[in-house]
Amino acid sequence: MKQTWGTRAAARFGSPLAKGPMQAHLEENHSAPVHGGLNARELESLGLHPEEVLDFSASINPLGAPREVREALRSLPPDAYPDRSCLKLRRALGSHLGIEPHSILAGNGSTELIHLIARAFLSPGDSAVIFAPTFGEYAAACRLAGASPVFLQSREEAEFRWDLAHASKLISGLRPSLVFVCNPNNPTGIYLGEDEVRQIADSLGGGGLLVLDEAYRSFVDKRWRSQGLIRMGNVVLLRSMTKDYGIAGLRLGYLLAAEGVVARVGKFQYSWSVNAAAQAAGLVAIDHPRHVERGRRLVGASKDFLTSALGRMGLDCPPSAANFLLIRVGEAARLRRELLTRFRVCVRDCASFGLPEHIRIGVRSVEDSRRLVLALKASTAIRNHHE
Amino acid sequence: MKQTWGTRAAARFGSPLAKGPMQAHLEENHSAPVHGGLNARELESLGLHPEEVLDFSASINPLGAPREVREALRSLPPDAYPDRSCLKLRRALGSHLGIEPHSILAGNGSTELIHLIARAFLSPGDSAVIFAPTFGEYAAACRLAGASPVFLQSREEAEFRWDLAHASKLISGLRPSLVFVCNPNNPTGIYLGEDEVRQIADSLGGGGLLVLDEAYRSFVDKRWRSQGLIRMGNVVLLRSMTKDYGIAGLRLGYLLAAEGVVARVGKFQYSWSVNAAAQAAGLVAIDHPRHVERGRRLVGASKDFLTSALGRMGLDCPPSAANFLLIRVGEAARLRRELLTRFRVCVRDCASFGLPEHIRIGVRSVEDSRRLVLALKASTAIRNHHE
Repeated sequence: MKQTWGTRAAARFGSPLAKGPMQAHLEENHSAPVHGGLNARELESLGLHPEEVLDFSASINPLGAPREVREALRSLPPDAYPDRSCLKLRRALGSHLGIEPHSILAGNGSTELIHLIARAFLSPGDSAVIFAPTFGEYAAACRLAGASPVFLQSREEAEFRWDLAHASKLISGLRPSLVFVCNPNNPTGIYLGEDEVRQIADSLGGGGLLVLDEAYRSFVDKRWRSQGLIRMGNVVLLRSMTKDYGIAGLRLGYLLAAEGVVARVGKFQYSWSVNAAAQAAGLVAIDHPRHVERGRRLVGASKDFLTSALGRMGLDCPPSAANFLLIRVGEAARLRRELLTRFRVCVRDCASFGLPEHIRIGVRSVEDSRRLVLALKASTAIRNHHE
Repeated sequence: MKQTWGTRAAARFGSPLAKGPMQAHLEENHSAPVHGGLNARELESLGLHPEEVLDFSASINPLGAPREVREALRSLPPDAYPDRSCLKLRRALGSHLGIEPHSILAGNGSTELIHLIARAFLSPGDSAVIFAPTFGEYAAACRLAGASPVFLQSREEAEFRWDLAHASKLISGLRPSLVFVCNPNNPTGIYLGEDEVRQIADSLGGGGLLVLDEAYRSFVDKRWRSQGLIRMGNVVLLRSMTKDYGIAGLRLGYLLAAEGVVARVGKFQYSWSVNAAAQAAGLVAIDHPRHVERGRRLVGASKDFLTSALGRMGLDCPPSAANFLLIRVGEAARLRRELLTRFRVCVRDCASFGLPEHIRIGVRSVEDSRRLVLALKASTAIRNHHE
């Protein structure tokens, strides 16, 4: 892919993309992934301010940031350059996790790390397997690196569980450079056990890397200790401090991997990508693991409330190990729009996941969840769906 | 280059880099660029805290951040996702500059933008011309994109002015995909006029892009209005709010270019790369252009003081249009080390620019500059140089 954008083609600056037979293909491949979170342009067109919208479309710790993190940010001098090596942060993470700092790479959100891994391990023409439906940034990163994503789709009829025997066979036959698995998975909430993940890593046969994105792991009640997997040598774990500590505005993630993998990925990271505010926040946050526990308990209580309330409404809402729920609602885009315009509640329409009949809701407090349920009950989009 | 890191090579995870005949080449090409700014690991090894070191190695507005920016950061909620499109910031910049928002792309520091431009416009095997000595990140970005940088070196005997007739000839013969010019140039302080820049852009003959990095432009006394250059279609301007407004910890830069160039570069930017703190700071900063003016006047007074004081010491310090000075000192590495350990003053050793006999100092207040001059007078490294 990327090779076709060469020197000579670079002459056409007037149009967004080179014209000609390539265009449709380029546009398809390089379209930006769709994400949750409020859309500034949309809110503006509706005359809404972000502060007046209850946002269920993002999935972070419902407690927000710890007080101590807010305080640390208040006293941060903005004029000193960030430490390019994130040394203090990696050491603190290392001692918290019992892992050597050279096995840790900090990133400007785990999204930066996804793109760095793709650059470091994919060449044009390579293939990458993505367990789908899932976070759109994996495919975007693969395509930008010139590689072709191969999607291993789960089906709703199987409660969104992947056929792992089929997956292993496909991987050992295809020998992809990368395999992306989000665990628990966004948006389905499926959480694979250690044996299942090891089976996927083994099927690579030493010829590729498994990227296990654990962005939502902290919100899983019965989670297994995954960090020993990095000793397999071909497994990278991605973690999101953004989500754990409610600091989505600052962007902070990290990866855990064998030293050689960390070194290789790190070579593609531009200088100062993790800013000083994110490093300072992360450093304070690590000392507050109970904040994450409290967030997890809150998510548990809200999930129980929502699951039974939605069930009583006749809405299909399969169990989720994560801090979000996937709900079949019928016309998701229409419902989303109605909830936003009539009730100032924002949910995630899952069309970009290939699930146009589902919404995803990031779990907030029980009180906020009550407001969501009331809005859903009053919505005409849902009522029509059930008539 | 990058092509050799393909699927099959990816099996070797145990070591930092693939072993074999490629290794030396890989290490050379992908070594991290050297930058100014304090080095956390070095300070630690010397038992020094960053707060007790007077840092002349970075070059930002000596006034630091405006008070209003600090206040805005204090009230920023850290738990809301950043606006992925930086819509408000681009609109504010657009109205400040009289440029359409679609001709502006915000970045996580201008360094992110340098790497995005390299990815968007370079393919493996392409060439890129870099006016040198200069900022190391241009060459790093070219190499990571698989392209070969060709350096157009200026010579000290010519007071670091480039031979522009030779440059034009080289460019029109080589037809590079990208040309990087830092204006005013880091670390030499050379500032090209409009005609000279247009001559370079013209020599590309419509087949490549000129990246004019104006990171230090705000500190130039007699600067020309460059933004009309983007109408040439093959010129990108890079600007650094980090430096203008003393917010180095937050990282914020932007590029100005034709709409098609912005769209193409933007496709390579991962989601949420510019965090909410940087966007909030930038939005407030734009309303304080006098802060930049005051910084520029302060730099002017300090440069006058330093130039005459250094001259009296017999140190060679050619005129610089920017907010830093390049000084020939003899053994720069030794002097840097002595200044840091004995006087807690940090300067930039220019060995990585190919100038091992020079230091670069970022201009601070006259008071701080006095402390630097005293340290230089007391240093044995300088004394030996003159004996």
